[in-house]
Amino acid sequence: MRPRDVIRTKRDHGELSPEQIDAFVAAAAHLDGSGWERYHLTALLMAIYLNGLSPAETAYLTVAMANSGRRLDLSDIAGPKVDKHSSGGVGDKTSLILGPLAAACGVIVPMMSGRGLGHTGGTLDKLEAIAGFRVRLSEEEFRTALRRVGLGMIGPTADMAPADRTLYALRDVTATVESIPLITASILSKKLAEGIDGLVMDVKCGRGAFMQTRPEAQALAASLLRVGTANGLRMRALITAMDVPLGCAVGHTLEVIEAIEVLKSRGPHDVRELSILLATRMVELAGLGDAAQAEQKVRAALASGAGLDVFRRCIEQQGGDARVIDDYHRLPTAPYTAAVVAPRRGFLTQMNAQDVGIATLLLGGGRQRADDTIDPAVGILCRAKPGEFVSAGATIYEVHYRDVQRWHEARERLEGSFTIGETPPPDTPLVLEELV
Amino acid sequence: MRPRDVIRTKRDHGELSPEQIDAFVAAAAHLDGSGWERYHLTALLMAIYLNGLSPAETAYLTVAMANSGRRLDLSDIAGPKVDKHSSGGVGDKTSLILGPLAAACGVIVPMMSGRGLGHTGGTLDKLEAIAGFRVRLSEEEFRTALRRVGLGMIGPTADMAPADRTLYALRDVTATVESIPLITASILSKKLAEGIDGLVMDVKCGRGAFMQTRPEAQALAASLLRVGTANGLRMRALITAMDVPLGCAVGHTLEVIEAIEVLKSRGPHDVRELSILLATRMVELAGLGDAAQAEQKVRAALASGAGLDVFRRCIEQQGGDARVIDDYHRLPTAPYTAAVVAPRRGFLTQMNAQDVGIATLLLGGGRQRADDTIDPAVGILCRAKPGEFVSAGATIYEVHYRDVQRWHEARERLEGSFTIGETPPPDTPLVLEELV
Repeated sequence: MRPRDVIRTKRDHGELSPEQIDAFVAAAAHLDGSGWERYHLTALLMAIYLNGLSPAETAYLTVAMANSGRRLDLSDIAGPKVDKHSSGGVGDKTSLILGPLAAACGVIVPMMSGRGLGHTGGTLDKLEAIAGFRVRLSEEEFRTALRRVGLGMIGPTADMAPADRTLYALRDVTATVESIPLITASILSKKLAEGIDGLVMDVKCGRGAFMQTRPEAQALAASLLRVGTANGLRMRALITAMDVPLGCAVGHTLEVIEAIEVLKSRGPHDVRELSILLATRMVELAGLGDAAQAEQKVRAALASGAGLDVFRRCIEQQGGDARVIDDYHRLPTAPYTAAVVAPRRGFLTQMNAQDVGIATLLLGGGRQRADDTIDPAVGILCRAKPGEFVSAGATIYEVHYRDVQRWHEARERLEGSFTIGETPPPDTPLVLEELV
Repeated sequence: MRPRDVIRTKRDHGELSPEQIDAFVAAAAHLDGSGWERYHLTALLMAIYLNGLSPAETAYLTVAMANSGRRLDLSDIAGPKVDKHSSGGVGDKTSLILGPLAAACGVIVPMMSGRGLGHTGGTLDKLEAIAGFRVRLSEEEFRTALRRVGLGMIGPTADMAPADRTLYALRDVTATVESIPLITASILSKKLAEGIDGLVMDVKCGRGAFMQTRPEAQALAASLLRVGTANGLRMRALITAMDVPLGCAVGHTLEVIEAIEVLKSRGPHDVRELSILLATRMVELAGLGDAAQAEQKVRAALASGAGLDVFRRCIEQQGGDARVIDDYHRLPTAPYTAAVVAPRRGFLTQMNAQDVGIATLLLGGGRQRADDTIDPAVGILCRAKPGEFVSAGATIYEVHYRDVQRWHEARERLEGSFTIGETPPPDTPLVLEELV
């Protein structure tokens, strides 16, 4: 089967056969000797981006990518295994909260997360703000963590879904990321390889997300549900707003602190309630109660400190310094802070999540390229959120920075990121829709 | 300028800026250090294939590709320089005839041709069937040929339009060949680099051509005319039928013989008349007479043997054995011949040019890949053409072969390539349309 003929099929709006998809995925997993080159892969990726994949093609591609490497078998670990995945947002630290809460309720949470790219953050990078925390565990260490703590938080291993690693890197540099079938296959191939029974998807929608419009987010959620359930996963998908940053903290250290604050029953209302809702769905999918019972369990785990205790034990189990929970100064701290203030009094009517994400990137707290290093100490605290009334000169953003030049670049972006008006903006819900 | 951003522009149906096209072409010409990889180029080529290029983008791309290498300046050679280009067909040996005819009428013909690929033949390969004929001349040798003979027939040099060489090779393996803007830029970038004043285009249309339908052929002809005239070329474009092979001979030696026969005022009617028409247009574009005067000159050059004499001098000038003109046995000859016969009596109603081209390829007289070697001796003589009445057992094809296994493969293809019916097929014109 020649690559050219596979490419031509999709170029001409045809349906790729299972054999054609197998050849494409095998080449992505092991290029040498496949008869394919990277330039074949990217031509096909662009044809898929522009001409799409049918539900059947998407499902087959997902399974082929999952099968391109090792698939974990966690059946020897007692208990229902449920994970959560977010399509990526600004200030989204819910994984650090809902993982411990769900585990405290009896769910086994084998959480495999990614790193941040562009203006969105990654769970792995946030965990690494904690001194000593190891996100690369051997399979045996991961199993031990799940048995002892009920929660393991790691990155994908080199031998899992290798086809996705190649394809994602190529998509990133050839403008073929924002494709619903390709996103579906990328996310779910890794999740299928995790050996989970259930998955809660948080599909972000808005200016700060990949999916900027509601129909796009709905299409992605529907695609994920269809392919996931067809492969035996119990699934829920929420579509949540990502127009303004989630919570107040953006940046690695600041987000870890905010997550711990929520686990201490403090912290911003939006982060707390979204974390509770997502953890509730995980408990439901685990078969540990109906919606009301599950929510009661999660709220109890939060109130009792059981969730915080799981997080503490998770940090210890993975080699991290758990004293950060009681002493935030043990986290990396930026040497300087500065403020971006309101130019006049009025209601804060808008705050652009993407601008805040990019400003964090400019401060050094993100990656423009996959091999950039990040500075976990820098970041932004939103001291006001849309709907609040601010006086002239009131702090909108508290910026934690290390380099004055970078601060100036970030300030320019931040000053254009919000608007102040005479009347308060309409209330907008955080959870836009839920699909079963 | 990042490749990703250029790709994204075309992916999203945007107009590529001159700077973006320059970056793409510079990378195709010299990949090292450009910041581009082949996998960027092919993703962009697929986006162009599917989303198209505007006339302005196509024109800019063509010039950028022409300027990516050396452009000949022939202004020191007296006389109007006019070339002809065909979009590729089966049995099309007109270049070997019209080049000498036009030169005999006073046109300077700096003809740069290509090699055959797939089921279509190439002028360079046909010339190389003549022992000693050198299609690679130095620029000085080429100039000498033009001064002395008025005709030079060579391949593109390594330093002309290098961007096209890279892009064509990538298009071939990624199913992005059949794109009107990309074909336009590929053809005309090389023609602009030739230093000509005028160009006659023969756009082939039908089963044996790249452009299988009339609207596609019209679109290509219009695109070529638009871009060519915008760059100062005097142009004519003919759309000619390519459903059945042109003439009777397909294969290198056989086509050279047929071309010489036409120059001797014999040979098939269709080849002769199309060659005269195309040469007439070249004489017109050269400013050497109106349509009637030009045709008269060309027919006179044919009748007097002046065209044959130019071809003889051209062969000698380029190192070939000109005695082939009087002794066809000096051309490579296949050891065996066999016949494909009519299974019953009736009118030959159809003959599929593509099948005949592919059968020639199967005999060893073509290239599946650019680095295949060809056997100039093998080929097919069509002993009947559509419209003729044939008896049962009459020879339809005389097949010249070397390898019996290959002959069997070719026979299978040839037996399905024609149909016999009760009534003669309608007459179909060879020249479908002419655009000015």
